Amino acid sequence: MGIAVIYGSSRHDGNSEQLAKRLVEGFHADHIHLADYRIEPITDYRHSEKQPYPDDDYHQVLERLLVQDILVFATPIYWYGPSGLTKTFIDRWSQSLRENKEEFLSKLSVKSAWVIGVGDDQPHLKGIPLVQQFQYIFEYTGTTYAGYILGKGNKPGDILEDASALAAVDAIRGQWHSSGQYT
Amino acid sequence: MGIAVIYGSSRHDGNSEQLAKRLVEGFHADHIHLADYRIEPITDYRHSEKQPYPDDDYHQVLERLLVQDILVFATPIYWYGPSGLTKTFIDRWSQSLRENKEEFLSKLSVKSAWVIGVGDDQPHLKGIPLVQQFQYIFEYTGTTYAGYILGKGNKPGDILEDASALAAVDAIRGQWHSSGQYT
Amino acid sequence: MGIAVIYGSSRHDGNSEQLAKRLVEGFHADHIHLADYRIEPITDYRHSEKQPYPDDDYHQVLERLLVQDILVFATPIYWYGPSGLTKTFIDRWSQSLRENKEEFLSKLSVKSAWVIGVGDDQPHLKGIPLVQQFQYIFEYTGTTYAGYILGKGNKPGDILEDASALAAVDAIRGQWHSSGQYT
Amino acid sequence: MGIAVIYGSSRHDGNSEQLAKRLVEGFHADHIHLADYRIEPITDYRHSEKQPYPDDDYHQVLERLLVQDILVFATPIYWYGPSGLTKTFIDRWSQSLRENKEEFLSKLSVKSAWVIGVGDDQPHLKGIPLVQQFQYIFEYTGTTYAGYILGKGNKPGDILEDASALAAVDAIRGQWHSSGQYT
Repeated sequence: MGIAVIYGSSRHDGNSEQLAKRLVEGFHADHIHLADYRIEPITDYRHSEKQPYPDDDYHQVLERLLVQDILVFATPIYWYGPSGLTKTFIDRWSQSLRENKEEFLSKLSVKSAWVIGVGDDQPHLKGIPLVQQFQYIFEYTGTTYAGYILGKGNKPGDILEDASALAAVDAIRGQWHSSGQYT
Repeated sequence: MGIAVIYGSSRHDGNSEQLAKRLVEGFHADHIHLADYRIEPITDYRHSEKQPYPDDDYHQVLERLLVQDILVFATPIYWYGPSGLTKTFIDRWSQSLRENKEEFLSKLSVKSAWVIGVGDDQPHLKGIPLVQQFQYIFEYTGTTYAGYILGKGNKPGDILEDASALAAVDAIRGQWHSSGQYT
Repeated sequence: MGIAVIYGSSRHDGNSEQLAKRLVEGFHADHIHLADYRIEPITDYRHSEKQPYPDDDYHQVLERLLVQDILVFATPIYWYGPSGLTKTFIDRWSQSLRENKEEFLSKLSVKSAWVIGVGDDQPHLKGIPLVQQFQYIFEYTGTTYAGYILGKGNKPGDILEDASALAAVDAIRGQWHSSGQYT
Repeated sequence: MGIAVIYGSSRHDGNSEQLAKRLVEGFHADHIHLADYRIEPITDYRHSEKQPYPDDDYHQVLERLLVQDILVFATPIYWYGPSGLTKTFIDRWSQSLRENKEEFLSKLSVKSAWVIGVGDDQPHLKGIPLVQQFQYIFEYTGTTYAGYILGKGNKPGDILEDASALAAVDAIRGQWHSSGQYT
């Protein structure tokens, strides 16, 4: 068991991805790029006859995530929230709540999650709504919110000059190393 | 000129829609259901050769919005944020920033916007990240953030029993009436 | 049993007070003006020999509060937080946690609380940190956070022109009336 | 010119102080312990004849702060906000706004500020209202909000085991060193 990294950017090798890769380098990690999958928006069937949900890659992606101990959501900050790819994926959790709520929540409730958000416009302040949104998400699913890193970047590679973000990455890696897990 | 109501629910006649309709009833309003259009997720072309953007309904919807004075974003609260439909639409504003930034922002900067968010899980507290996300969005576009209403509802129609939300609606309608606009 | 209104302004009859009085008018309410009492700042004795706590009016005020069902904290928004009088009073709760934690929390945990914050600088947005601060306070004490009203005012009396705040007050009064309590 | 560190704890050598001292060690810093001064709560004279303000140590402390380039507010997180000592001091800024608004704001507007908040109960999440409160404070005074560190600690010394907080301190020190300032 190890770490599932869920990349929410529409491009490969962007800043949030670079930061997340640096975080998990050398640990046992499964790298999941949401952009490589077809995941349709949720349709709200809470109060209608249950309709067939989209026949797409949602379950496949979800399964890869559910077998790991630790979740790292790595998303660019788009318009002061998680990327559309990230949000669309999480919105589909409502489908899992209808399909097998108890099992779904019991699996999520034993995991720890980290959030990485990288943006250009004062991410340490304007990324706070994103941090709090995940706070309530994890509160609902019972997942331990281990922490978050807000980094600054615009052009790919910028993030490697954000000393605070890199220091935060190193501090977490140190904890993982000394715990002896995920290696 | 009047009010553009942008409905972000995947279903018609849900709680956020009912509350928004009550808000604008009798005023000059254009009702835009995002679910009736095809709007693809943004692709991040900020740092690559500009590629063709999706050939979908984005511009058509955007134009309907830009000709009005007041924007009302009416969204269910999904996983403590705006619905995927709402977020995907706003994410595409990045496309407009590339296509004609100055004109786009100059139009948005003279508008006022209201946000309606309806959810089931302590919306007055857990809807705050959504409220703040829009705060930064409107700060960026220069749009006046006239206010927000957070209402409670799960089953369609629930919202009509949220006395606080209805009172907030009436207070805003009173202001609009006494201003003599939008009628 | 009824409502304890805790006024945090340093002046009488300010906007937060006017709004709170309008809220509880006709209901059984005890009006507690913190400015009329001497309540010293907390000294942190968590990790030293317990020293005598200040011999001031803290316990007298606290007792008046603890015998009611509902708490209404009515505070001006000073520098984007609760007034010093309000905060100093709440900081002293740490003393009660040392003196009789179990009894103190068991009493607070069966109450409901409302927060009224009135400020001049975009209170609906910039009052949010105050709203969230009380969210965590009540989460800690187990108190039900029934809701909050953020109103706009600077000169005394301004608040009576804030239609949204007045509507919110009326909606709460309506709930109390129909519950048949506190009258 | 250098750094003013404003300690808001009621005890000496607590966690927030230890973290702040580690931050500024070796740099030119003036250490200001609010607990060593007598600073009375603000009285709201905005709408009355101006009364004499308290004859206490406020101006003396303020002057020490205003002559430095960088402000570091180091406060324990009490009840999810800044300590009473910290808040009472900042509330008095309203006095300076009446006495010499222009000069006061022009001095604050050229400074950068850091906030250190240390608490025991999920400070990275529940310290967010404190972070945002300072965001609006500095927005008002025109001060650059350089950043914040939220650390975890209860017993004095705990903070030295918070690897993330220590890493954040080192990252900032690195920036200061490479800028060649404040040494």
